[in-house]
Amino acid sequence: MESPEKNIKLVIQYDGTLFHGFQKQKDGPRTVQEEVEKALERLTGETTPTEGAGRTDAGVHALGQVVSFKTTTRIPPVKIASALRVYLPEDIQTVDSIEVDGDFSARFSARAKEYGYYLYQSAAPVPVLRNYALFVPGEIDCAAMAEALTILEGEHDFSALKNEGSSPANPVKTIYRTGASRKGCFIKIVVYGSGFLYKMVRNIVGTVLEVGLGKRDTRWIREVLESGDRTLAGRTVGPQGLYLYRVDYEKSCCVKANRVKESSGSE
Amino acid sequence: MESPEKNIKLVIQYDGTLFHGFQKQKDGPRTVQEEVEKALERLTGETTPTEGAGRTDAGVHALGQVVSFKTTTRIPPVKIASALRVYLPEDIQTVDSIEVDGDFSARFSARAKEYGYYLYQSAAPVPVLRNYALFVPGEIDCAAMAEALTILEGEHDFSALKNEGSSPANPVKTIYRTGASRKGCFIKIVVYGSGFLYKMVRNIVGTVLEVGLGKRDTRWIREVLESGDRTLAGRTVGPQGLYLYRVDYEKSCCVKANRVKESSGSE
Repeated sequence: MESPEKNIKLVIQYDGTLFHGFQKQKDGPRTVQEEVEKALERLTGETTPTEGAGRTDAGVHALGQVVSFKTTTRIPPVKIASALRVYLPEDIQTVDSIEVDGDFSARFSARAKEYGYYLYQSAAPVPVLRNYALFVPGEIDCAAMAEALTILEGEHDFSALKNEGSSPANPVKTIYRTGASRKGCFIKIVVYGSGFLYKMVRNIVGTVLEVGLGKRDTRWIREVLESGDRTLAGRTVGPQGLYLYRVDYEKSCCVKANRVKESSGSE
Repeated sequence: MESPEKNIKLVIQYDGTLFHGFQKQKDGPRTVQEEVEKALERLTGETTPTEGAGRTDAGVHALGQVVSFKTTTRIPPVKIASALRVYLPEDIQTVDSIEVDGDFSARFSARAKEYGYYLYQSAAPVPVLRNYALFVPGEIDCAAMAEALTILEGEHDFSALKNEGSSPANPVKTIYRTGASRKGCFIKIVVYGSGFLYKMVRNIVGTVLEVGLGKRDTRWIREVLESGDRTLAGRTVGPQGLYLYRVDYEKSCCVKANRVKESSGSE
């Protein structure tokens, strides 16, 4: 006997190293979405199309990716996350699951996302970090990078910091908060905003890194941003340092939630 | 024209995840030693047998493994490390190289080794950490674990903390220093000693973890140690949290060194 259809919000983590990105590809290589859908099918017996909040690229990690899907399973919504673990590979892990309004969409209901990017300074690349942080041989001025990041805060046309290749999107986004902090040999860059264009976070990091390395000053960041010209900005840094931390939604999306989690609350 | 034969001490780092341990195996799977010897052959044109200070197991990492070998290459000894990088896979990295006395042996001249082991506490396993630290679901009492570790300091017969499988060795070793410290969700255990028996560090961690989890008290550690009985000790924890930090030698071994590095100095 089936239950009425429910809409589920599932939070997951993954190591992006061995995935060709989040999004399922036809007859394609291993993706996070395909592994999650296979696990759901094994758990519930239903073919379950899913939607992801952020379509992370190959090599990009997630600590708080959000996936939504509809199901008629009789497993209580809050238990789906732990029940699913048995069927997932060890590079994907579930965090929690709740029932949400029928019109909730992991992708389209998202109000903000937070990304982190890790760099490390060292005389030579460190093998155990090669898939998890970007090696930077030179000295980095963390405070200069933090200052450069603040220029990006607010509502701007971010055309200069997006790559081609994604579906056309409104290039106007709002960055609510940025930060750059040092811990030992690591520098962590955090960017929290309304939404991000294709490779925008990796282009932001590649651009403020020019300032951190003393090659450019913070005025240059403003010029790049105002130019709308991608060729003026810095390089797209590698995917291995990038982590999707959190996706925020309006609290009202989750009225059916059995409990309110930090990961589902908007700032 | 060949140079006279020189004895070289090379310090390397590696990510053990994709290796079946350090030691070369006949017609066997991928090992660190084989990759280093292949790279040396490509660099120098010579078949170059090597010796490693510690024969780390599959999945164990190294930040300061030492390898020694003899070569007639005309590349200056201190430049071998950087020249070799081109021929090494990205999960092995060289740190430095120096010329040492002809009778120096990475394995038999070693006076002390330092290992680190990382645990992390979390509600569920974290995918990006799965190959680099041990997931522990419960609360860990770090101070209790540090106290348990001090009981192992000094000269003891460590038969209770070694696994079978290695060549017979004198089970009497000296542990000079231990430590357990917390940083965020991580706990780092450090053990510095004259030498280590087969799987001894992983057995030490599995045993003091029983104390850290409140299942045993520190007196039990003394009983285990004095019993000489492996079956009384804790489990062998996984290889993924283990890092060979450093191997120390008598300074006199390295009289030919062009420079004295921290990694080659004895404590």
